[in-house]
Amino acid sequence: MSTKIIMDCDPGTDDAFSIAMAVASDELDIFGVTTTYGNVGLDHTTNNTLRILDWLGSNIPVYQGIDRALLGTLVDASEYHGATGLEAPEIGQPTSTPREKDAVSFLIDTLRSSSSKVTIVASGPLTNLAVMLRLAPDVVSKIERIVFMGGSTDYGNDSPAAEFNMLCDPHAAQIVFDADVPKTMFGLNVTHQVIATPQRVQAMRDLGNDAGRVFADMSVFFEKVYRERYDFDGSALHDPCTVAWLLRPDLFETRKMRVDVETNSGLSFGRTVHDIWNIAEKGCHTDVALSADADGFFELLTNLLSKLR
Amino acid sequence: MSTKIIMDCDPGTDDAFSIAMAVASDELDIFGVTTTYGNVGLDHTTNNTLRILDWLGSNIPVYQGIDRALLGTLVDASEYHGATGLEAPEIGQPTSTPREKDAVSFLIDTLRSSSSKVTIVASGPLTNLAVMLRLAPDVVSKIERIVFMGGSTDYGNDSPAAEFNMLCDPHAAQIVFDADVPKTMFGLNVTHQVIATPQRVQAMRDLGNDAGRVFADMSVFFEKVYRERYDFDGSALHDPCTVAWLLRPDLFETRKMRVDVETNSGLSFGRTVHDIWNIAEKGCHTDVALSADADGFFELLTNLLSKLR
Amino acid sequence: MSTKIIMDCDPGTDDAFSIAMAVASDELDIFGVTTTYGNVGLDHTTNNTLRILDWLGSNIPVYQGIDRALLGTLVDASEYHGATGLEAPEIGQPTSTPREKDAVSFLIDTLRSSSSKVTIVASGPLTNLAVMLRLAPDVVSKIERIVFMGGSTDYGNDSPAAEFNMLCDPHAAQIVFDADVPKTMFGLNVTHQVIATPQRVQAMRDLGNDAGRVFADMSVFFEKVYRERYDFDGSALHDPCTVAWLLRPDLFETRKMRVDVETNSGLSFGRTVHDIWNIAEKGCHTDVALSADADGFFELLTNLLSKLR
Amino acid sequence: MSTKIIMDCDPGTDDAFSIAMAVASDELDIFGVTTTYGNVGLDHTTNNTLRILDWLGSNIPVYQGIDRALLGTLVDASEYHGATGLEAPEIGQPTSTPREKDAVSFLIDTLRSSSSKVTIVASGPLTNLAVMLRLAPDVVSKIERIVFMGGSTDYGNDSPAAEFNMLCDPHAAQIVFDADVPKTMFGLNVTHQVIATPQRVQAMRDLGNDAGRVFADMSVFFEKVYRERYDFDGSALHDPCTVAWLLRPDLFETRKMRVDVETNSGLSFGRTVHDIWNIAEKGCHTDVALSADADGFFELLTNLLSKLR
Ligand SMILES: [Ca+2]
Ligand SMILES: [Ca+2]
Ligand SMILES: [Ca+2]
Ligand SMILES: [Ca+2]
Repeated sequence: MSTKIIMDCDPGTDDAFSIAMAVASDELDIFGVTTTYGNVGLDHTTNNTLRILDWLGSNIPVYQGIDRALLGTLVDASEYHGATGLEAPEIGQPTSTPREKDAVSFLIDTLRSSSSKVTIVASGPLTNLAVMLRLAPDVVSKIERIVFMGGSTDYGNDSPAAEFNMLCDPHAAQIVFDADVPKTMFGLNVTHQVIATPQRVQAMRDLGNDAGRVFADMSVFFEKVYRERYDFDGSALHDPCTVAWLLRPDLFETRKMRVDVETNSGLSFGRTVHDIWNIAEKGCHTDVALSADADGFFELLTNLLSKLR
Repeated sequence: MSTKIIMDCDPGTDDAFSIAMAVASDELDIFGVTTTYGNVGLDHTTNNTLRILDWLGSNIPVYQGIDRALLGTLVDASEYHGATGLEAPEIGQPTSTPREKDAVSFLIDTLRSSSSKVTIVASGPLTNLAVMLRLAPDVVSKIERIVFMGGSTDYGNDSPAAEFNMLCDPHAAQIVFDADVPKTMFGLNVTHQVIATPQRVQAMRDLGNDAGRVFADMSVFFEKVYRERYDFDGSALHDPCTVAWLLRPDLFETRKMRVDVETNSGLSFGRTVHDIWNIAEKGCHTDVALSADADGFFELLTNLLSKLR
Repeated sequence: MSTKIIMDCDPGTDDAFSIAMAVASDELDIFGVTTTYGNVGLDHTTNNTLRILDWLGSNIPVYQGIDRALLGTLVDASEYHGATGLEAPEIGQPTSTPREKDAVSFLIDTLRSSSSKVTIVASGPLTNLAVMLRLAPDVVSKIERIVFMGGSTDYGNDSPAAEFNMLCDPHAAQIVFDADVPKTMFGLNVTHQVIATPQRVQAMRDLGNDAGRVFADMSVFFEKVYRERYDFDGSALHDPCTVAWLLRPDLFETRKMRVDVETNSGLSFGRTVHDIWNIAEKGCHTDVALSADADGFFELLTNLLSKLR
Repeated sequence: MSTKIIMDCDPGTDDAFSIAMAVASDELDIFGVTTTYGNVGLDHTTNNTLRILDWLGSNIPVYQGIDRALLGTLVDASEYHGATGLEAPEIGQPTSTPREKDAVSFLIDTLRSSSSKVTIVASGPLTNLAVMLRLAPDVVSKIERIVFMGGSTDYGNDSPAAEFNMLCDPHAAQIVFDADVPKTMFGLNVTHQVIATPQRVQAMRDLGNDAGRVFADMSVFFEKVYRERYDFDGSALHDPCTVAWLLRPDLFETRKMRVDVETNSGLSFGRTVHDIWNIAEKGCHTDVALSADADGFFELLTNLLSKLR
């Protein structure tokens, strides 16, 4: 039986991996993809979502989301992702367009009308989900789980303390963390273990199909900053950890703990706070990934890419 | 020519004055009343809105809004307003009900479809308006002005630094302050000049009609805390300053300045920050009321009450 | 009987007025002047203190204080005061030097050895006093009162929310506010009522002595920013309100309330928070000046200047 | 050649280990021990310091420090350490007394008069060191290094985000972190690797001397909270990591990075922020311990205990 999901993302190179893996899998039933600003502006991320889905031959509907954080800071991460946010020349411009309905309305309507619970896979700032939760608190009962990339139990990447998706909209993230919904979190502490090393990239390329080649190229474009700033042996594939966990939860070790996010300005603005010892004794909804089987992850990824064009 | 308005409120005694004055005036065309939590919970404020409008014989539609602050703190102010938020025994239970559409959808749809600009009169926490602005940034072009009660240039009332409406949802308020829309603000610095003294209350009562008697009684119920904590000679009529200014802007002295709200925790959480000397050189959209002609206000109020049942 | 005082200041034009007034008065017994950084760096403020005292023919000892805020931000206000902090060409370079003992040690030793209580007059950042309080909490019993210029009940001058002295070292200010010592505060809300208008400056000049001429000139240099930014009719004489109150408390209306300062980053960083309605029900040690008799102030000032060279 | 050190501590069980190890070693020349409040009040920590030194037969001078945090919060950790902070019945009451000079004066005078640089070993809140740095910035040139226990690269223990010593006085810690002095930090991320398991405790006891028995007993008293809250197999010996590193730096892996501490209120108040990727490009003075050779640590500890009574 397949898992019903909605993907909320800001492609973005690693979101592209995430979408490709979800499309390739037989086990996921994708109701739609909603877009959020983040790595680049909302117009780019929406266009990139359409580019990927068109190129993959998928007709999953796309819904454009909110264009900025609740408290309004626009973020530009073109340093990581290139000016359009997805440097992938082989993936041309899209022919399809986003649906007229906005992302939040799509989320609310879909959840309300679904006969069974739906899993939300989030790999960008959480603004759409936050507004959904305030506008329609009743949808909580229709959410199976929110599986997201964001935060860190140790070091940040967009500031010394904070990870990019969280720092984009800490207030939205806190609204999501406060919701009484099961969550699984993939923070930098674990996504920095999932490195597309040259050998792993070569294995994609060796598939011989378009997808293997294109995603191998994307990994290489994406890796520059990881080699220079982090001294990693390739790019870290943050976002696809979410889809990988849905398909193969055994690839990750998780531990349940309360997670909040710092919404006060200062050095820690946007940092996730992890109450691993349950000191604050608050409601605890989040399974936090602490370690990954990186070899298993890349085996799964390569296998899924082989099913694509 | 009448001014088109939507009222967003949380009755609340002083919101009731505000609604009565707007209904009594010929110069205001009320498209609808949206409700927000605040003085008491959303169910109470919505019910109170219906009670007032039914009692006044008005069929202005009512739309229920969001039930809590963006970052989720629920606030109870029954100390001021009684357990239901509106201690007015003569005003019975309503027979009408709120419309099915939610407040944010009503606001967005009404603004989008209006042929001319609409003024929003806000006298509660600004959560509905904030979510509207993020969900439909295009509506900004259809807003004539946001006239709101909230904040203070000097002292707070819900904390030493912050006024109640702002402290209920500082993050929502900041979203509203950041919007490129003209605004007029009535903070405690000016509403504490608008005191329903015994003589002024007697003038309402002397009208001899139901409205004069009922609103005189409400003033008296409401005044207890003002006599005890503030040493005022009666209750302060905060919210109706907004409607009074729409009808008689000459009753107030205003000064244009940038206004923001403190969204960081600490002693100043929820305080409005007023850049009267333009130190920060940021966009400046708010006309801040600095003084009131209280006698003129009560003359206007009494005159309007005389037109009601 | 004279009042024993220690002055802690950062001259600075208005501190110079403060020192001159204290030296001119028969009613104040100045044990010493301690210096703090602030308007300009500590070397300049110490030198300026010596310049003023030498020029006045006073041999009151000067003690150099701490050179930066507790959390280390150095502030430059040469825009207001000129590069040296005291544009007064007639006041030459000093021949005397600061004492070897540091300001904090002087404060502690003097207070501990004094047979009666001593009043501290502070007109700069409060770093010296804060360190004194932590290093020697016993001196609290020897402090008659701390009379200080700083903060505001309404608008800031160094940020939209904060006054300069407070913003220089909010953490030190909070340590002082927490001390169980009577305090009198002169914030911008009242010092902005004490304006050296052309007529008042002329009255100083008309004294015909050196002091009248030199301080008239200083007022004029200092007034530029007040005319341009604040649209005042002359400079505001902030710091000397402290000395004026010691000599003539009837010149000011004060009200006792709890005062704290915002030590969290954000828009309100460094703002004083005034619990005028005693909402927080905390210990309350501060008499806050709310209004000034400006004519009376300038009469006192001119009279004191007439006693100097 | 021995290393000259001053120890600043708040015994406290694990501080007691630290002192004992330092006294036992031939390689450390202890100029004095300064006390800070923390685990319990300053009177208790000073008394405990004297108890330990007297029991060890040492006449190292003890200087009492500042009795509370810069911003004044008093902290009680008797849950961990018992009401007096040192549950060690065999260690009786002291006969010696603290010196008359206060801790900050001792630190300043000793550093200024020392012919060579001195290492400061800090295992409590950093208030004494912070006041020293502001009062006598020149002493920086006489500090070889500050080796301290505090903070965490991942989880807190006194709040979900913050470690106890840092949360006691984050502002003081930030003053120390800002100082241009080499530092070595032992945070919870590494001290939680140094567990006094039953076997390791038995090895102390098997020494057969007083010290082995008494410190074995202290480990057992201290372990309760670690077993219950953390699910550790014994108590974590936080503070003595500092002394162990001075004697055997090879027992720890460290990495140089900028460390700051969150001084703004909120969930992260008191948390150390670690810029491991040098994102903020600020001055970087701290070698942060990331892993420990726990077996090597306990071998060193047991060997040192064997040299005591
Ligand atoms: Ca993403
Ligand atoms: Ca209201
Ligand atoms: Ca000054
Ligand atoms: Ca300790």
